[in-house]
Amino acid sequence: MTLETTLAAIRPADAEAMTAARDLQARLTKPAGSLGALEELSVRLAGLAGVCPPPRPEPATVAVFAGDHGVHAQRVSPWPQEVTAQMVANFVAGGAVVNAFARQTGADVMVVDVGVAIPLHGGPNLLDANVRRGTRDMTIGPALTREEALAAVEVGIQVARTLVEQGAKALLTGDMGIANTTPAAALIAVFTGTSAGVVTGRGTGIDDDTLAHKVAVVTAALDRHSPDPADPLGVLAAVGGLEHAALTGFILGAAACRVPVIVDGVIAASAAVAAAAFAPDSVAAMVAGHRSAEPGASVALAHLGLEPLLDLGMRLGEGSGAVLALPVVQAAVRVLHEVATFDSAGVSEK
Amino acid sequence: MTLETTLAAIRPADAEAMTAARDLQARLTKPAGSLGALEELSVRLAGLAGVCPPPRPEPATVAVFAGDHGVHAQRVSPWPQEVTAQMVANFVAGGAVVNAFARQTGADVMVVDVGVAIPLHGGPNLLDANVRRGTRDMTIGPALTREEALAAVEVGIQVARTLVEQGAKALLTGDMGIANTTPAAALIAVFTGTSAGVVTGRGTGIDDDTLAHKVAVVTAALDRHSPDPADPLGVLAAVGGLEHAALTGFILGAAACRVPVIVDGVIAASAAVAAAAFAPDSVAAMVAGHRSAEPGASVALAHLGLEPLLDLGMRLGEGSGAVLALPVVQAAVRVLHEVATFDSAGVSEK
Repeated sequence: MTLETTLAAIRPADAEAMTAARDLQARLTKPAGSLGALEELSVRLAGLAGVCPPPRPEPATVAVFAGDHGVHAQRVSPWPQEVTAQMVANFVAGGAVVNAFARQTGADVMVVDVGVAIPLHGGPNLLDANVRRGTRDMTIGPALTREEALAAVEVGIQVARTLVEQGAKALLTGDMGIANTTPAAALIAVFTGTSAGVVTGRGTGIDDDTLAHKVAVVTAALDRHSPDPADPLGVLAAVGGLEHAALTGFILGAAACRVPVIVDGVIAASAAVAAAAFAPDSVAAMVAGHRSAEPGASVALAHLGLEPLLDLGMRLGEGSGAVLALPVVQAAVRVLHEVATFDSAGVSEK
Repeated sequence: MTLETTLAAIRPADAEAMTAARDLQARLTKPAGSLGALEELSVRLAGLAGVCPPPRPEPATVAVFAGDHGVHAQRVSPWPQEVTAQMVANFVAGGAVVNAFARQTGADVMVVDVGVAIPLHGGPNLLDANVRRGTRDMTIGPALTREEALAAVEVGIQVARTLVEQGAKALLTGDMGIANTTPAAALIAVFTGTSAGVVTGRGTGIDDDTLAHKVAVVTAALDRHSPDPADPLGVLAAVGGLEHAALTGFILGAAACRVPVIVDGVIAASAAVAAAAFAPDSVAAMVAGHRSAEPGASVALAHLGLEPLLDLGMRLGEGSGAVLALPVVQAAVRVLHEVATFDSAGVSEK
C-alpha cells in the first residue's frame, strides 16, 4: 500500500454513528455524563468505525519501531548508541517494560527494525524492514533523502495493514532509538509552529547543560533546513527519524483501516502531528494514551485537540504509555456493548 | 474480627522493603524515574507487603457495599430511593458499568447489602449483611446508633478478611446508595476540617438550586451534631451511612491484612478519611484509583496525601474508577517481577 492510496482512503468520522453512540450512552444505567472522558471516547470510536457500538478494540498489537540517529554524534544523549540494538534484543526476549505491560493488558508486541545502526539477530516477533542503518546528522545535512523517508513511512503503513488483516482491532505505537527525542522535538516545532526551547525536553533525564545544548542543536537544525510544514515528507526527511517516519505511516495506515491507534509519548506525538499534516482526518483514529513528561508531547496533543487518558509522569517510550491505556480504551467501548439500559434492567429514571 | 483487634494489627510500612524496591527500580532496563508515579507506587506496595517485590495484586475483588439514606427525604437527589435496590439487582445480573469494567480488567464483583431499605432477592455474589434498612435522617437526629455504625464497620472488616482468606491479593472499594454523596460530604467536612460548601458536589448531576439546598442540608447536619473528628465511630453514627461505615471497615481490614485497597470515588474517599482517623497507618494500604469529579474526593485525597492514578472526569461510583485503575496497579508491581536488569539483559548504562 503506497502513501498516496493510503491518504486517499482516509475519511472523516461518521456523524450518524457518533449520534447513535451519544443516544445509547444516555439510555444506559448510569447518570448522564458520569463516565466523563470515556463517554466521548466511545463516541469518537463509533465515529471512526462508522457503526454503533464500534468493534471492541481487541486483540491489540503494539508495534515498536526502532531506529538510530546521526544527531547522536552531537552528544544530545548520555546513552551510547548501541543501547538501541540492545533494547531491541530486550524487547524480543520479553524483558522490557513494554513487554511486562503488554502481558498485563493482553497486547501483542511486535518489533520493527526500520533504522537500527547495528545489524540485529532475528526473533519470532522482530521484523527486518531496515531502510537505512540510522539517519544522517541533521545539523550537517538532511537526516534522510525524501525517498528514504517515504520508504520508512510505507514500512509503517504496511505494518498497520498487515496487523489489521491478521485481526488486530487496535494498534498501539511504540518506539526505541537513542537520541530520538531530538528529532521528535524538531518535528513538533515545525508542525505546531513552536520554538525549539518550548518543545525540547530532558528525554531520558539529561541535566541542565545538556538540555541547553540539545535546544541549540534542534534550533540549529531548524535554522539550517527551514522545513515547510505544508510538505510533511520534506520535514520528515530534513529533521525526522526512521522510526518517526514509520510511526507516521503506521498512524495513517490505522486511519485508512478505520482502526483506533493509541498514541504513546513524545515520539509518537511527533509522528501524529506529521500524520495530521498529511491527512487532517487521520486525527479521528488517534487516541492519546498518556501525557508524557516530555514537554513536546503536550504541545503536539494540544495541536491535535487530543486529551490524554493517563497522566502518570511517565517518560519511557517503547509504547509503555499506550499499552497501559489500552484497558481504558477497551472499557470505554465495552460499556456500549454490555451495560444494561434503564428499560432492560428495570431501573427507574429520575 | 472486631474493630479493636483490627486496629491493633495495623502497622506502618516496612522501610527496608521500600529501600529494596527503590534499589531494584534503579537496576531495571529503563532510565531512572521514567515510570513516574508507577515507581513510587511499587515502592509503597513493597512497604505494605514488607517484601520486595511485593505480591502481584491479583486476583482482585471489588466489593460493592449498598445502603439507603434517611436524608433522601430532604430531596438532595432527584433519583427515587428504590433505585438503590434496582441497581443492586443490576450488579447481581452483571449489567452495570462496574460489571463491564470488572470483566475488562479481570476483577471479581461482590455485592454486600449492608443497609438497603428494601429486602433484596439473593444471588450468587450478593451477601446479605443488612444492619438496618437505611439510615435515619441526619438533619433530624443521628443517622445511626454507635452500635449500628460499629456493626457496619465490622461487616466491612469481615468482608475484607474473608476475601483475603479466599486468595484476593487486592481489594477494591465499591458503593451504591441513592443520596450517598450527602453523608460522604459531611464525613469529609468533619475529618478534613473543611466547610460543607467546599466538599459538597453535584453527585449524579444536580442543578444549581439543588446543590445550594444540599450544601444547606449538610451544613444543618454538621451544626446539629458538631461531630468530633477524634471520635470516628461517633462521626460515622452522626452523619455517615451504612455503606460508608462498611467501607471504612473494609479499608481497615485490608490494611490489617497488608493487602492493597484501591479507593474509588467520593464515597470511598470519605471512608478512607474515616479509616485514617481510626488508624493513621492504614493510609499505607490505600491506593487512590481515580480523581472523582466530586469536589470532596479531592479534598479527602489531599488530606491523606494520596495522588490518584486516573483523572477522567468520572463520577459514577459503584467502584468503577477503582476497577479501571486496577491494571495500572498490577502493571506497577509486575515491573518489579518481570523487567530485566541492565546486567541480566546486557544493556549498557550511560
